[in-house]
Amino acid sequence: MTKEDVNYMQIALQEAEKALEKDEIPIGAIIVCNNKIIAKAHNLSETLCDSSAHAEMQAFTAASLYLKSKYLKNCTLYVTLEPCVMCSGAAYWAQIDNIVFGAFDKKFAHIDKKALLHPSTMIKGGVLEKECSEMLSLFFQRKR
Amino acid sequence: MTKEDVNYMQIALQEAEKALEKDEIPIGAIIVCNNKIIAKAHNLSETLCDSSAHAEMQAFTAASLYLKSKYLKNCTLYVTLEPCVMCSGAAYWAQIDNIVFGAFDKKFAHIDKKALLHPSTMIKGGVLEKECSEMLSLFFQRKR
Repeated sequence: MTKEDVNYMQIALQEAEKALEKDEIPIGAIIVCNNKIIAKAHNLSETLCDSSAHAEMQAFTAASLYLKSKYLKNCTLYVTLEPCVMCSGAAYWAQIDNIVFGAFDKKFAHIDKKALLHPSTMIKGGVLEKECSEMLSLFFQRKR
Repeated sequence: MTKEDVNYMQIALQEAEKALEKDEIPIGAIIVCNNKIIAKAHNLSETLCDSSAHAEMQAFTAASLYLKSKYLKNCTLYVTLEPCVMCSGAAYWAQIDNIVFGAFDKKFAHIDKKALLHPSTMIKGGVLEKECSEMLSLFFQRKR
């Protein structure tokens, strides 16, 4: 875990905070390309009434638009929760270089998501895990 | 394979034809809810410069918008090619009842996509398989 990872994950957490304020499951994502943040997004599934409106999906689309490229070369996705199957599949198509996530997704731990990613994509988990997990726990506690 | 399956897959093939006309990989999808077509879409990955703009993803979003529901209850997705990992993951979140596809996706045959779907989702393949495969073969032959 580098200092850079921590700094960028803090910005992804700020995105998750925006989702929390909208009563959305608090997940945030950013995409960094050559040390520049080119996309910021947060979960909008309820707001958009679209179960595919995950933070990562929106970040991929925004980053592609910015780079004018379907492929996210030299890019790193920072996301506060381990990507789901859908988002792992989207990362495959985007051929993103790196994925750094915060909290581990325990519900879908039985699915080997590394096997779903492009062979050139590196993945690293547990950056600011405690902070990322706590934001999710807070949300689900409130709902109960 | 019912007569209904064939009829709806023909409409999905018409969508794939629209993608072909745009020089996109020709894949089409429709969503049927209680015998009514509520969404039609085709692959727009190149046009939108977005590797996640698969026919199914757009169809899910359009159907949710139409139904004003994140969940696609009483819905069937007809798609000309077996859904990829990303689209299978999106189908999981939408909890769609049925998926009917045409051609089998040989490249990703090693991934058990049934295992990625929601337990309540039924999946059936090979409807108008020849027609769906031929449209894809035609596209890739032209590209060579």
